[in-house]
Amino acid sequence: MKKIAVILSGSGVYDGTEIHEAVLALYAIERAGATWHCFAPNINQLHVINHKTGEEMDETRNVLVEAARIARGNIDDVAKLNVDEYDALLLPGGFGVAKNLTDFAIAGAECSINTHVAQACRAFAKANKPAGYLCIAPTIIPMIYDQGVKGTIGNDEATAAAFDRMGGEHIDCQVDEVHFDENHKVLSTPAYMLAENISQAASGIDKLVNKLVEIA
Amino acid sequence: MKKIAVILSGSGVYDGTEIHEAVLALYAIERAGATWHCFAPNINQLHVINHKTGEEMDETRNVLVEAARIARGNIDDVAKLNVDEYDALLLPGGFGVAKNLTDFAIAGAECSINTHVAQACRAFAKANKPAGYLCIAPTIIPMIYDQGVKGTIGNDEATAAAFDRMGGEHIDCQVDEVHFDENHKVLSTPAYMLAENISQAASGIDKLVNKLVEIA
Repeated sequence: MKKIAVILSGSGVYDGTEIHEAVLALYAIERAGATWHCFAPNINQLHVINHKTGEEMDETRNVLVEAARIARGNIDDVAKLNVDEYDALLLPGGFGVAKNLTDFAIAGAECSINTHVAQACRAFAKANKPAGYLCIAPTIIPMIYDQGVKGTIGNDEATAAAFDRMGGEHIDCQVDEVHFDENHKVLSTPAYMLAENISQAASGIDKLVNKLVEIA
Repeated sequence: MKKIAVILSGSGVYDGTEIHEAVLALYAIERAGATWHCFAPNINQLHVINHKTGEEMDETRNVLVEAARIARGNIDDVAKLNVDEYDALLLPGGFGVAKNLTDFAIAGAECSINTHVAQACRAFAKANKPAGYLCIAPTIIPMIYDQGVKGTIGNDEATAAAFDRMGGEHIDCQVDEVHFDENHKVLSTPAYMLAENISQAASGIDKLVNKLVEIA
């Protein structure tokens, strides 16, 4: 059975992993006949957002501990991710990608990426193993692959421009479509960058995961 | 379009709503052609569990605020749930049902139920509108309906016995099956009381939601 490593960034769209995207992705991995194991960095979240009001809360939460809620405990520190044990990599979206895995939400094209997340993603690239990035997670792609690597954010012009400034080539993409950069074995789809409900998010995620497992 | 009210109990299997069950249920509602809106009680959680280690954390979290993570903000205080605006009710599982909506996890058959949750559930029963309970959530059924109401927990003997002591009649049920008490218009399925992965949980949840929307 093919094994897919999934990197999460917390649990909740505004300060962590987008929950629907993560569950849809894990479910799609199972239906495609593969297994999953989750990983997340053992660091504090940039902040904690009240998902009812959108306001910042005076709390501190750990990315790995919160991501464990989505993974039902089937999760480890991303520093321990051994590429040899997995056939492909998958990163769901949510602001946690741009706040915890990187600081893209603050610094845009001048952002930085967490060392262990970068090492994990680069290990899959170097091993020529495929990777899939959902929603806002493709902002990581130019930090991992060669100049000119192609990826999709949806149609947000500012984010797309930042993607290009980081060295990538942004491809406009519909919510039910997937872009496949064959040279780099990288898949991406907009999910909740464009989706207005769970079914729309699922339409692209299912296609991406099926392709990811197929080529893994 | 039929509208389904969904009552959540937090966000995370060990102290709130089971996240996979909730997302699978919301997704199934959409695919069945209906819409969903979430509700939760505006109270503090019984406790906060570290989902990586299983240990209790020295934190206080609000059920409504945490449940908003699953609902992406599409959620209101369950005290505001107006039965006239919805065609059916759905409660996913997770320990939050037995820790926050009721205290079944502590008191078993002698448990109590939150006033606003009880009022909401009884309003659907009184209006003869259908309701679906997943996983551990059917422990609420005997607190809402007449003596002899039928429901399923899976095959856990202690929980099944408590269900009977509260006045219900427990029915053994496989993970991919649904029990329908036609007299009370109540559906239940074991989900993660038995499921060993997301796909197994989905098998029963999809059947339950399809039936729930059909008879709504």
